[in-house]
Amino acid sequence: MSRKARGVVEVVDDAGDRPYDDRLETLRSSLGLDGLSGLLVFDPVNIRYLTGFTGSAGVVLVRPDECLLVSDFRYRVQAREQAPVARFVELEGAFSPLAPELVEGFEGCLGVEKDHLKVEEWEALAPALEGLDVSLVRGHVRKMRRVKSAGELRAVREASLLAVQVMERLSLMQVVGRTERDVALELEVWARKHGSEGIPFPYILAWGPNSAKPHAEPGDTVIGQGGLLVVDLGAVVDGYASDITRTFSTGKVGPEEARAHRVTLEAQEAARREAGPGIACRHVDKVARDVIEGEGLGDFFKHGLGHGVGLEVHEEPGLSSRSEDVLEPGMVVTIEPGIYLEGVGGVRIEDSVAVTETGVEVLTEMDRGLLTLS
Amino acid sequence: MSRKARGVVEVVDDAGDRPYDDRLETLRSSLGLDGLSGLLVFDPVNIRYLTGFTGSAGVVLVRPDECLLVSDFRYRVQAREQAPVARFVELEGAFSPLAPELVEGFEGCLGVEKDHLKVEEWEALAPALEGLDVSLVRGHVRKMRRVKSAGELRAVREASLLAVQVMERLSLMQVVGRTERDVALELEVWARKHGSEGIPFPYILAWGPNSAKPHAEPGDTVIGQGGLLVVDLGAVVDGYASDITRTFSTGKVGPEEARAHRVTLEAQEAARREAGPGIACRHVDKVARDVIEGEGLGDFFKHGLGHGVGLEVHEEPGLSSRSEDVLEPGMVVTIEPGIYLEGVGGVRIEDSVAVTETGVEVLTEMDRGLLTLS
Repeated sequence: MSRKARGVVEVVDDAGDRPYDDRLETLRSSLGLDGLSGLLVFDPVNIRYLTGFTGSAGVVLVRPDECLLVSDFRYRVQAREQAPVARFVELEGAFSPLAPELVEGFEGCLGVEKDHLKVEEWEALAPALEGLDVSLVRGHVRKMRRVKSAGELRAVREASLLAVQVMERLSLMQVVGRTERDVALELEVWARKHGSEGIPFPYILAWGPNSAKPHAEPGDTVIGQGGLLVVDLGAVVDGYASDITRTFSTGKVGPEEARAHRVTLEAQEAARREAGPGIACRHVDKVARDVIEGEGLGDFFKHGLGHGVGLEVHEEPGLSSRSEDVLEPGMVVTIEPGIYLEGVGGVRIEDSVAVTETGVEVLTEMDRGLLTLS
Repeated sequence: MSRKARGVVEVVDDAGDRPYDDRLETLRSSLGLDGLSGLLVFDPVNIRYLTGFTGSAGVVLVRPDECLLVSDFRYRVQAREQAPVARFVELEGAFSPLAPELVEGFEGCLGVEKDHLKVEEWEALAPALEGLDVSLVRGHVRKMRRVKSAGELRAVREASLLAVQVMERLSLMQVVGRTERDVALELEVWARKHGSEGIPFPYILAWGPNSAKPHAEPGDTVIGQGGLLVVDLGAVVDGYASDITRTFSTGKVGPEEARAHRVTLEAQEAARREAGPGIACRHVDKVARDVIEGEGLGDFFKHGLGHGVGLEVHEEPGLSSRSEDVLEPGMVVTIEPGIYLEGVGGVRIEDSVAVTETGVEVLTEMDRGLLTLS
């Protein structure tokens, strides 16, 4: 396995073991620019990013002077261990999102994250926020999460290497004659036994006509000889995800399928060459799309080109025709064009890349050819 | 394994292969009682219940005359296969929740499910709903899901039997000297290889002081000799979940831990005896709580007694001191008191039971004693 990075990411390291203090400070500055003096955070991934807390229930209140983590008794021990940056406040019952006394004395405008808060929860919050100047906002934390620190990049890189190793297992395994589900489970178990903290998404392993469904679930279909096999998988290290897709054959494929693979690969290579700092995400998407449309196959590539990867396997920025974002050093994104021929088969080729000062570093370097599995 | 059901559930079977038509009709009646002539459904589990569609992106619009499933091109094939009850409407881009033309001509008040809709999505919906009489509502579908049909009960029963088999694996395995994570993964793989469609929740397998955390994640702790081991697991069959917890020892346990187990078991048995049709959920909770409080251990049992189980492993009704619900034949709920001694260890004993005409049928029948694993 060769790593043909066009550059190596150089960013300032996390400030020792105190990344959370720094992140909270950065967040406060960003809030200040929008006239906010605090933020209520509901997204558990944002909460983890800001405090280190990995529990599934909790609300974070960032005030100018301190950070509160509000949760219930179940997380008392865990919060103390994981999130010393925040003062833990234990609420009676998991259903009261906030007690009025927590926002007592709060001055200025309080932002409330609206992209994870449910309408019903918002209604329930109202009494606690009465009399406060409140603004429904989004994106402050998500935007911070786009550009990875050196510590985060280390984790994504490690998760990517592990994902490549998982993908490489396929050539050592018997695939034909087994169900999609069975092969996918073997890959998942291998990943988890070799350091992946769970899996970042249910693996996709789809053979034949199933491979034409971009989000196929591995099922009871027995993988036969001949035809396309799309495998989309990843790993998680220190909470950070990776994402890679390769398309294999299990013997002979028809000319349509072979052409779909060739065109997808061409599009993927063109997009990878084009990606780099200062390049609009929409432009990278267009470069890949142009290749596929140029071959008259545009109707069969209907999803976006890629997405950010980090604590979530799908995060910002998005690489699509609608994207307003521009790539910056430290961002990690996927580049994954696909061509899906209903009833016949599909092809997708996906890499995760980190944007460097000069281009991109491919984190999931591995052969992209139409390898044959047995 | 003996099955000591106190009664067998008898309910009318699903109407052949058309449960979805019936469910939609029931839903329309329920909406009518609240003055609604339609419902926008966002919760993917409710969507599955009403239409059979298992995709993760989609909105269902129940109109008086028809049911629309709105999703994007990725789910075109799948929707056609799974949900013939609904007319599939393909939207450009996954992000537009609804097009105005879909509600054209809609008369009366349209309910909008608010317990799954995010504030941001609600804002995005507004233009499409302009001019309509709209009401934010909750619970119509969730309430229907509480009482299971015979077909649903068959699935939950099968998932429960599978979960018991998984739990029984523990006595055949070497446990001491391995990490929690490793043992939990072996159980999960066994479940999935023996018919479980994934797992309904990440298995909990927590030894020693870890077992005092009600939601501990299996980690790198090596299971030692002596101490408590809490194992909470389930299976999924035809989309329906099961849920069982047993507490084991791995050798000698102290008197505190032994007492915690004895009291938890007593509370669990008392609650199981008490549960049945017409009994308030809050009362069943109280019966278990009284036993534990009577032993002076009330401070160490701070979660609710149980929850409904079905398409989701946590659904309605809740069994807690706050519950307003009453048990009905066909409901499936867990009964799971626990005692958690921080720094020492925890005990939880959980069964899934189906409410019958006369009492409950225990779906996860299995020894509840403090068995020793090696």
